[in-house]
Amino acid sequence: MKKITVVGIGPGEEGGMTLAAIAAMRECDILVGYTKYIELVSPLFPEKETFATGMKQETERCREALRLADSGRKVALVCSGDSGIYGMAGLVYELSGAFPEVEIKVVPGVTAASSGAALLGAPLTHDFAVISLSDLLTPWELIEKRLRCAAEAELSIVLYNPSSKKRKDYLQRACDILLEKLSGDTVCGIASRIGREGETSCVMTLAELRETETDMFSTVFIGNPTTKRIGDRMVTPRGYRDV
Amino acid sequence: MKKITVVGIGPGEEGGMTLAAIAAMRECDILVGYTKYIELVSPLFPEKETFATGMKQETERCREALRLADSGRKVALVCSGDSGIYGMAGLVYELSGAFPEVEIKVVPGVTAASSGAALLGAPLTHDFAVISLSDLLTPWELIEKRLRCAAEAELSIVLYNPSSKKRKDYLQRACDILLEKLSGDTVCGIASRIGREGETSCVMTLAELRETETDMFSTVFIGNPTTKRIGDRMVTPRGYRDV
Repeated sequence: MKKITVVGIGPGEEGGMTLAAIAAMRECDILVGYTKYIELVSPLFPEKETFATGMKQETERCREALRLADSGRKVALVCSGDSGIYGMAGLVYELSGAFPEVEIKVVPGVTAASSGAALLGAPLTHDFAVISLSDLLTPWELIEKRLRCAAEAELSIVLYNPSSKKRKDYLQRACDILLEKLSGDTVCGIASRIGREGETSCVMTLAELRETETDMFSTVFIGNPTTKRIGDRMVTPRGYRDV
Repeated sequence: MKKITVVGIGPGEEGGMTLAAIAAMRECDILVGYTKYIELVSPLFPEKETFATGMKQETERCREALRLADSGRKVALVCSGDSGIYGMAGLVYELSGAFPEVEIKVVPGVTAASSGAALLGAPLTHDFAVISLSDLLTPWELIEKRLRCAAEAELSIVLYNPSSKKRKDYLQRACDILLEKLSGDTVCGIASRIGREGETSCVMTLAELRETETDMFSTVFIGNPTTKRIGDRMVTPRGYRDV
């Protein structure tokens, strides 16, 4: 049976991996993934062959992974966080038509919304939206619309890819849109380098977030109007009859 | 040091647990949780003392967990899925004021959005909203507003708690709201009993979903307007320049 397993490894450290993710990597013939993620997992499986590609080479990477699986190799395609949330699982399915004999299995992982929330307190106890600020594959106008609707709906919001070298002001632009609907006092937080060296987290207001620089290793959390600051944590209550 | 660890165990089976979650349960003196979840984990740790409470006793359960930690016991408070997403982490923080010496640690887990998506294919490759249809702690009007805004924003949508014995028609009501904005052909899916006995998944249209009964063990996925059916899977593309 020809098989590819798309594995979510969680935020980075071994403790954040599920047993199923570890088993899938242990049982494969070859680990395929983005260079940085292969660097994270290959020390755990030093005997495994690896195939790594750089950023923005996702299509090539997924096609090569499918090709390897089609040639009879047991492939584990490694993704950080969850393999389904902005991960490679979708692209593998989209490319799979050319490889009809390859069976696809998706092993989910802990996404940055969950691992970042755990560092910051409990910002996602109630309904929320997950929105990427990367406009590489999404028109900026659609990102703006999603931000406006999420704020209008009083959802907590998690921002993936809040900025990068080429998109330095995107988080500020997003905050300006959110500030049309939300108070500057809205409780927010940033989790950075989750589960890796230099891990940090910081709680602040939306007005402060607007003035803060982040990078591509950060995940940003915007509370809903009921989110509170408790000590140095951000906490969203479950609902109106609570505590 | 007085300590409580709020542990997300993932969907249910051992393979879906992270190493950190297993370590937190192994290192605790007492496992606290909802009866069904304690039944899931206690066979893995047969020597551990347990304290279980029933549904809707969340506040009592969290307060007792904090009390036990304050008395010097090492407590692992067990949640299904992620401990932060509709989990007990928020309530523990809210109640923690009365137990200032207790340190709180949150260990995240794989939430049903991720584990259900993995069963169905890759519905969450792009931005999405997570909305609970339970109106126990949320006014139904706010749930309706969130559904409308999420559909307006062309977000994929994950519905937690889509129905229960007392809320039999809630999913149908939600579908009617979504159908104001979304086509009846929108690709949808249901994942049930994820990682447990009787696990199932099924892909269908939004029009079909409206006529489908679910239960409290199901998670419902509504695609965005670009979500496709590929074989028996639902797949949301990453963006407009893809494949």
